[in-house]
Amino acid sequence: MQVVFLGTGAGLPSKSRNVTSVILDLLQENQSMWMFDCGEATQHQILHTNIKPRKVTKIFITHLHGDHIYGLPGFLSSRSFQGGSDPVTIYGPEGLEQFVRTCLTISQTHLSYSIKFVEISDGIIYEDDKFKVIAQSLDHGITSFGYRIVEKDLPGALLVEELKKQNIPPGPIYQQIKNNPTVTLPSGEVIDTSRFIGKSKQGKVVVIFGDTRFKETHYLLAENADLLIHEATFSGSQEELANEYYHSTTIQAAAIAKNAKAKKLILTHISARFQEQDYENLVKEAKSIFPNTEIAKDYTRFTV
Amino acid sequence: MQVVFLGTGAGLPSKSRNVTSVILDLLQENQSMWMFDCGEATQHQILHTNIKPRKVTKIFITHLHGDHIYGLPGFLSSRSFQGGSDPVTIYGPEGLEQFVRTCLTISQTHLSYSIKFVEISDGIIYEDDKFKVIAQSLDHGITSFGYRIVEKDLPGALLVEELKKQNIPPGPIYQQIKNNPTVTLPSGEVIDTSRFIGKSKQGKVVVIFGDTRFKETHYLLAENADLLIHEATFSGSQEELANEYYHSTTIQAAAIAKNAKAKKLILTHISARFQEQDYENLVKEAKSIFPNTEIAKDYTRFTV
Ligand SMILES: [Zn+2]
Ligand SMILES: [Zn+2]
Repeated sequence: MQVVFLGTGAGLPSKSRNVTSVILDLLQENQSMWMFDCGEATQHQILHTNIKPRKVTKIFITHLHGDHIYGLPGFLSSRSFQGGSDPVTIYGPEGLEQFVRTCLTISQTHLSYSIKFVEISDGIIYEDDKFKVIAQSLDHGITSFGYRIVEKDLPGALLVEELKKQNIPPGPIYQQIKNNPTVTLPSGEVIDTSRFIGKSKQGKVVVIFGDTRFKETHYLLAENADLLIHEATFSGSQEELANEYYHSTTIQAAAIAKNAKAKKLILTHISARFQEQDYENLVKEAKSIFPNTEIAKDYTRFTV
Repeated sequence: MQVVFLGTGAGLPSKSRNVTSVILDLLQENQSMWMFDCGEATQHQILHTNIKPRKVTKIFITHLHGDHIYGLPGFLSSRSFQGGSDPVTIYGPEGLEQFVRTCLTISQTHLSYSIKFVEISDGIIYEDDKFKVIAQSLDHGITSFGYRIVEKDLPGALLVEELKKQNIPPGPIYQQIKNNPTVTLPSGEVIDTSRFIGKSKQGKVVVIFGDTRFKETHYLLAENADLLIHEATFSGSQEELANEYYHSTTIQAAAIAKNAKAKKLILTHISARFQEQDYENLVKEAKSIFPNTEIAKDYTRFTV
């Protein structure tokens, strides 16, 4: 599982940071990519990566501010232009479907694939055999969600050597042993299959917050996350401003990570008022609370 | 008067050409800039120029295809963010206002200036003491307009030496002489003021076509233009494709320029299927019909 930052700026684009978009690369896990937010020119950013738009099959929008959604009509159009045919499901707050449909209709854009909208509220918004996605409302003036992406534990491998030692030869019985708690052997013997299954591998948890003001309880969404991606529009000393504009500081983001006992924190949604030389200090502020912190840049890729 | 190309590609962005937008720089003439079309990431392109969004006071949209309008909500938002306060008038086909208002409303974007929409049809759509803009429908499947921007002739200067020779001393009478065909001097003498006014300077004419299929009569909009900007989505040999997709070839664009007796032709809306090494040939095709042809690139600036 990998995370690719396509845009890490706040409010409006700058030369070094585009407005928000993050890709969760699940090619290894399920041959697809999931997009979180789609600010203007996200499709332009993608031109400088190896990401294939047709591989993006789910788009999760945290909130409807322009810097998080204005790239969506263009991304969907170009995905069609480039021959995308797999359906896309778009998750987000009420109003998202009206925005996208209006843009596509007025521009007479006909997509080569179907799109489906899921208007979300708090709780589990998606689940399959490998993943579960949970949404939680935040505090941003406008409806804004954080997403917790939970990879389910991977079952352990069949211990073939152990089976052979017990004189159980390969065959359809192996599949039965893998899928059932007990199995009756041809000899009539009933075995407890758990002895023949390796340790299960714990799934990863990635949590992506939308824009938000700090709130004590927000850490619950990020509990024990392997990776927490949190906005840090303001520096540690600007708590009042952050509060006034419904955003967070570096230190507040770090407090969420700490309380959640997350393994790693990446700061994003960095204001254009900060320059290259300020980044070190922003990270330092967060590290004083939560040591394993990094700051995102456009195009950086993290392995989870 | 200058023209700056912000995007010169067709349909979708590539690494070398963004989707369509052109700036008519009238800072010398009336302290403002006019924008023609606003594809996605036009505001990003502007970051690499000295153009100030707050100086853009009129936006003319040729047609509602996404590659010509998806940058508009973001451009307007950022213009506000950057403290723009002068009103903006937006000209274009029916549906444009609904598109912009929906995007701004759903994203809860509140602009720091007012916007006014003018739904255009063929004819004079704007006129002041210095400029006149004429729109003409083209042939693009969807409603698409070309714009003829006419600078009015600049009145000649007052010939002060001549006035002094005739013993007419400086004073309010000079303004009267400038503004009236005849004037009565304090002596009672009635004079024909034209003797005291220098030669008027002919205003420039710039014509910007929206996407269109070739049509014989289109040259009328471009008659005697100092500069004609015309799409050339296809090469000379692809006339059938051009026709099928409601676009023009290099040769068709050149034919319009020739029949219009334009002074210069710039080809734009170049498909991503053409690479750097193809451009010379595209220009050569057009030059075989209309010698004074150039091909636009992103960021190139032409003086008219
Ligand atoms: Zn926001
Ligand atoms: Zn078009």
